[in-house]
Amino acid sequence: MTRTVVVGAGQLGPVRREDSRDSVVERLIVLVEEGASQGCQLVVFPELALTSFFPRWAIEDPRELDAWFETEMPGPATKALFDVAAERGVGFCLGYAELTPDGHRYNSQILVERDGSVVGIFRKVHLPGHEEIEPWRPFQHLERRYFEPGPDGFGVWRSFGGVVGMMICNDRRWPETYRVMGLQGAELILCGYNTPRHYPPDPSQDPLQGFHNALVMQSGAYQNGTWVVGVAKGGTEEGVEMLAESCIIAPSGQIVAAAATAGDELVVASCDLDRCAHYKETLFDFERYRMIEHYGLITSRRGAIAPDPPEETS
Amino acid sequence: MTRTVVVGAGQLGPVRREDSRDSVVERLIVLVEEGASQGCQLVVFPELALTSFFPRWAIEDPRELDAWFETEMPGPATKALFDVAAERGVGFCLGYAELTPDGHRYNSQILVERDGSVVGIFRKVHLPGHEEIEPWRPFQHLERRYFEPGPDGFGVWRSFGGVVGMMICNDRRWPETYRVMGLQGAELILCGYNTPRHYPPDPSQDPLQGFHNALVMQSGAYQNGTWVVGVAKGGTEEGVEMLAESCIIAPSGQIVAAAATAGDELVVASCDLDRCAHYKETLFDFERYRMIEHYGLITSRRGAIAPDPPEETS
Repeated sequence: MTRTVVVGAGQLGPVRREDSRDSVVERLIVLVEEGASQGCQLVVFPELALTSFFPRWAIEDPRELDAWFETEMPGPATKALFDVAAERGVGFCLGYAELTPDGHRYNSQILVERDGSVVGIFRKVHLPGHEEIEPWRPFQHLERRYFEPGPDGFGVWRSFGGVVGMMICNDRRWPETYRVMGLQGAELILCGYNTPRHYPPDPSQDPLQGFHNALVMQSGAYQNGTWVVGVAKGGTEEGVEMLAESCIIAPSGQIVAAAATAGDELVVASCDLDRCAHYKETLFDFERYRMIEHYGLITSRRGAIAPDPPEETS
Repeated sequence: MTRTVVVGAGQLGPVRREDSRDSVVERLIVLVEEGASQGCQLVVFPELALTSFFPRWAIEDPRELDAWFETEMPGPATKALFDVAAERGVGFCLGYAELTPDGHRYNSQILVERDGSVVGIFRKVHLPGHEEIEPWRPFQHLERRYFEPGPDGFGVWRSFGGVVGMMICNDRRWPETYRVMGLQGAELILCGYNTPRHYPPDPSQDPLQGFHNALVMQSGAYQNGTWVVGVAKGGTEEGVEMLAESCIIAPSGQIVAAAATAGDELVVASCDLDRCAHYKETLFDFERYRMIEHYGLITSRRGAIAPDPPEETS
C-alpha cells in the first residue's frame, strides 16, 4: 500500500469585507478542481478562509459579529464545496469561524475525507492578539475578544493513510504544538494562517515575518519527523498586507514546495508519509532519547520566572 | 548599565588522538588572547574541547577510558587557561569529560566568570548514540556507554549581566531544552558541540547537517527570545569530518556571526541582552500566551504512541 499523499496548499489572495461566502466558495472550488486535475487527495485552505480576516475590526454589535461565524458545516454556502470535493474524490481542510449550538465561538478548521465524511474539527489553541480594542493600532487583532481557546488541545486523526494533525496560525509558533502531536505519531500537520506582515507591538519583526514563518514550521517538522503544510492568505486585504508564503515542508525540515505569488494559488507536493520514519526511528526516537524527567517546567510553569537578581551591594 | 556582552565562539579544528591536553590548552589560550584583544567578555569553547572526540572509539580498558576524563577543574593542564583568562578579564565556557570524586561520568561544560570564579557546571542531558559497540559503523558514537545523563537538567545562572543557560551538542536538537531555560528567563544559551557530518543510522541526513544545526538553534533562540552561541569542532578529526559552522544567533533567530573556516577560529558578536525583551514581552509573552493545560503529553509520555490503526474490514 502506498503511503504517499498528494497535497495541495490552496493559498488565497485577499478576501474583501463585502465579498459573499458564495464568491469565496467559488474560488475554493476552482482550487479543488485544480487539485483534482493534479492528482491531489487533499487540498488545504487558510485560516478563516470564507471571509475577510474580521478580527482586524472592532465589532461591537453582537449580530454583526455573528454574521462572520458559521453555525453549521456544511452550511448553505459551503455545501457546494463539500459536493464538488466529494464528487472529485478530493479531501480538504478548511478554516472558518465556528459558532456552536450552545454559543461557543472558536477559530476552527475542519478536515474532510475524500468521500465527503468529516474526519475531525480542530479549534485553535494559541489565540494571539488582544482582548480590548486598542485604538493606537493601525488595525486590530481581536482574536482574544472574539474566540475562546480550543478546549480539546492537539489531537490527531487516522486519515489519508496516515496520522494527521491540525493547527492554526499562531499555534505554529509554539514548539509544544508540534510536540504534542508528535507524541501521538503525527505524520502530516495541516496549518492555515492569516499573518499580517506588520506586527504593531514590535515592528522590528516586520521584515522577518517570512523567515519566522518558515523557521517555526521547518523546525517543528524536523524535530518531530512530520510533514507540515502551511497555507496562507496573501496580498493586501482591506489595507493590511498579508504574508502569503504558503509552503509544504518535509520531515527533514526542507521546504519542498512554495507559493510564487500572493494570490489564489495551488502549491502541490507529493508527501511520502514513510519518510517520517527516517527521523522518528533514528535521531528523534522519542522513547529512546527524550528525557521527560527534566521537562517538568514546561507543564508546571506558564510564565517565565528568572532567578532573583544579585543583591545590591551598598 | 549596559547589558551588552561581547561573546567569542572559540571554534576548534581537529584534535588528534595523541595530542596532549597542554597542546590543546595552548590553542584555547590563543583564542582567549584573541578574544581579549577584540573586547570579548566571554569565550565559548566546544564540547569535550580538551581531547579528540573519544566516544568514536570502543574503549574496553577502564584505565584507558579514565585517561579521557578530568577529575578536577581546573586541573594541572587547565590551570593555565584559568590563569590567563582571569588575568585578561575574559570569562569562558569549556566542555570536558568529567569524572566526579564519587565515580560518576558526565559530558560537562563549565562556566567561568571574568574573575576566574566558577559560575556553574552543566552536564549533558540528551545523550545521543548507542550503549553497545556496533561494529557495522564506520566510527562509534558511544556517549551512552561512557556517560550518564546529567542529573540536574537545564538550570540558568545570573552572570555576565544577564541570565545564562548551557546545553551541549545533541541537547540543542530538542525544543524542550530551550523551553525549560526560557521558562527561567534565559537570555544567553551557550552550546558546545561535536557533530560528525556523517550519521551512520541514516546517511540521507548527511547533506543536511549544517541546515539542521542552524535550524534548531535559530528556532530555539526565536521561540524563547534568547541569544544562542553554538561552538563546534571542525575539520577532519581522526578520519571523521566534523561539522564546524559555529555561529551566534540573536533572539530574532537571525545568525549574526558565523565561522568562515573549519579550523581554530574566533567568531565574535556583540550580544545586547535587552534585545530579548522584543520577543519575551510581545509574541512570546509566556504568561499571557502559553497554554500549559494542553501540553500534558510532553511530560507524561516519553515515546510516541499513534492512535490505533483502523480495523481491517474482511
